[in-house]
Amino acid sequence: MNINDNYLKLKDSYLFSLIAKKINDYIKTYPEKKIIRLGIGDVTRPLVPAVTNAMEKAVVEMGSSGSFRGYGEEQGYEFLRQAISSYYSKKGVNLSNDEVFISDGAKSDLGNILDIFSVENTVLIPDPVYPVYVDTNIMAGRRITYINGNADNAFLPLPDKNIKADIIYLCSPNNPTGAVYNYEQLKIWVDYAINNDAIILFDSAYEAFIRDKNLPTSIYQIDGAKECAIEFGSLSKTAGFTGTRCGFTLIPNDLKRCGVVLNKLWLRRQTTKFNGVAYIIQRGAEAVFSDLGLDQTSKDINFYLENASIIADMLTEIGIWFTGGKNSPYIWLKCPDNMSSWEFFDYLLEKTGIVGTPGEGFGEKGEGYFRLTSFNSKENVIAAMDKIKKLRSMKENR
Amino acid sequence: MNINDNYLKLKDSYLFSLIAKKINDYIKTYPEKKIIRLGIGDVTRPLVPAVTNAMEKAVVEMGSSGSFRGYGEEQGYEFLRQAISSYYSKKGVNLSNDEVFISDGAKSDLGNILDIFSVENTVLIPDPVYPVYVDTNIMAGRRITYINGNADNAFLPLPDKNIKADIIYLCSPNNPTGAVYNYEQLKIWVDYAINNDAIILFDSAYEAFIRDKNLPTSIYQIDGAKECAIEFGSLSKTAGFTGTRCGFTLIPNDLKRCGVVLNKLWLRRQTTKFNGVAYIIQRGAEAVFSDLGLDQTSKDINFYLENASIIADMLTEIGIWFTGGKNSPYIWLKCPDNMSSWEFFDYLLEKTGIVGTPGEGFGEKGEGYFRLTSFNSKENVIAAMDKIKKLRSMKENR
Repeated sequence: MNINDNYLKLKDSYLFSLIAKKINDYIKTYPEKKIIRLGIGDVTRPLVPAVTNAMEKAVVEMGSSGSFRGYGEEQGYEFLRQAISSYYSKKGVNLSNDEVFISDGAKSDLGNILDIFSVENTVLIPDPVYPVYVDTNIMAGRRITYINGNADNAFLPLPDKNIKADIIYLCSPNNPTGAVYNYEQLKIWVDYAINNDAIILFDSAYEAFIRDKNLPTSIYQIDGAKECAIEFGSLSKTAGFTGTRCGFTLIPNDLKRCGVVLNKLWLRRQTTKFNGVAYIIQRGAEAVFSDLGLDQTSKDINFYLENASIIADMLTEIGIWFTGGKNSPYIWLKCPDNMSSWEFFDYLLEKTGIVGTPGEGFGEKGEGYFRLTSFNSKENVIAAMDKIKKLRSMKENR
Repeated sequence: MNINDNYLKLKDSYLFSLIAKKINDYIKTYPEKKIIRLGIGDVTRPLVPAVTNAMEKAVVEMGSSGSFRGYGEEQGYEFLRQAISSYYSKKGVNLSNDEVFISDGAKSDLGNILDIFSVENTVLIPDPVYPVYVDTNIMAGRRITYINGNADNAFLPLPDKNIKADIIYLCSPNNPTGAVYNYEQLKIWVDYAINNDAIILFDSAYEAFIRDKNLPTSIYQIDGAKECAIEFGSLSKTAGFTGTRCGFTLIPNDLKRCGVVLNKLWLRRQTTKFNGVAYIIQRGAEAVFSDLGLDQTSKDINFYLENASIIADMLTEIGIWFTGGKNSPYIWLKCPDNMSSWEFFDYLLEKTGIVGTPGEGFGEKGEGYFRLTSFNSKENVIAAMDKIKKLRSMKENR
């Protein structure tokens, strides 16, 4: 008996537990002070009525003999796959329903998709990035190569032709940096992937935050992407589904490697190791893509985007470098006065009660940077920005 | 770029699609005849009111700012883990809440658990069995050894001391045979696992069907099991959750291999590659374990068990050998007149319109056997048994 000893190579994931500990210590020291949380990337607005109405109806159906449903279709119900392919057709992306797989969230599928690839493949991951890409590959024992985000490339790294990779992760709008690739940049990635016989795993969890018509919201808006990319969608941030769990994975039928249709390989994986998403949840997800659902969720996204722009405006005003803040719920800022990520975390918490996320938690190249999120009330965001502005001017007048 | 070529070693899973094709052909040939489906193991009774009421309440909570919930606790909500550990304490099994992991169903976790073990391990799988055990290990490239079920051991094989294994699958009550291990037999398996430094993966998806007080409903009712076993529970058959998706995995804190606490390894796997089950579904699952929920779901299980006993009584009457039929929703019968599994499938469909599942679909040693399930209306089950009895007596009088 041996365990998978790749697990022993993982770094402890102490980021959010350390943050929680520091907040608790702060509350003990200053019980009267208010904490404003702009740290964890979790939504704060409730599910929209279109979604809850659909789920209530589905619960009633499940409680009645005539309308009860047992095991669902293995790839997800046709009604939801159709709703998603219709949503994509409005983006100019044509997908057949059998190219859509319903999941319990992008996080699960982003990890599980690796099952269908050889552990001998080399993986290319931008740094800083959502830590799940790195950890799932360490668990499988794959070689990882990093490509650096930095202020010079505005945290939108492009491929290095001297580096050979088989599996490439891209996340746009990016978590944690909020940066968004444009058409030309994604085209460079697609060409690179095709030249390297590589696969792009494209995480589009934040696409609904893109309001700029000149930016792509799907990798399939790029010529050639159907021959080299798998896209992962999520309703977590699109529709407040972080606690409701539904996403989707798109694998074009044209996508082959080693002569094998990857869509069929993934279908085999999912029908063997997954049993679909609850009917009730799939009905809620279907409602997200209805006209009413899109209208209601769009208002919530606008609400978060307004918060983001309040943060962005303040940072601009006080002269702090950042990415994101538009077309994304995230703002990625350079820690002032050359502070390290954790130094700035401690400083900000101590002086203002504001909680953010140290950039170092997203990779080595995140050191010296800091993530703020727009998932809070407008009132709290304004209060937080006032505090930061005051802090800055106090420092300058010192 | 290479794919995981272990996938190419999988046999096509044509069982249920071939059955579907044969049914369609039958309907075309005999459009006026009635089909009675006793094939697929899917429940037919709706969710009980305790569950739908809890889910309706949870949907309302999710639609309101004050009670909305984002990301849940990573292992599952404490309220549900507590409900499950309380359920187990009534079985005489003490579990702390951190030994309970909430899943989207036993099928997912039975496959995913393999992530934490080395691919060099040897796996021991009973034949016939639920095909997922075999396929998930082929996908990972593990060596598989089979242990044979047959009429002599009543499809309850015991370990062969000459065979060395690292990972052992047990399913009791068994799918597809309906056979249930007793205390003494499970003790032999536990001792064997401890002597071999092996881990038992115990699938207890059908435990709620056990009505005989002398049979164990959890592996942890066996001395020593906490040092060698992981148990997988499911609400699919317990509470009609096949389309609602919730189960759980139990990993005792005492369970170590290679000096590593497996509970912590699995926690790392789940927090990296999974994001929990929908809050709404977890509230429904919690209600299953309430007094009202247990009472209501127990009535549905009794209903299925009554169907099973109608089938069992008829088979006894006409002298056909079988296992299961009590403490299980399944009946596993020897095909009469030495027919093969598929010959009997064709014969039964042609003569009576009854659909079952050919035993060969569950492994080589299932050849010559046939699975009937109790998941149908009482009326249909009685009608089906009358048809089989008539068919048998016609044959005998010929």
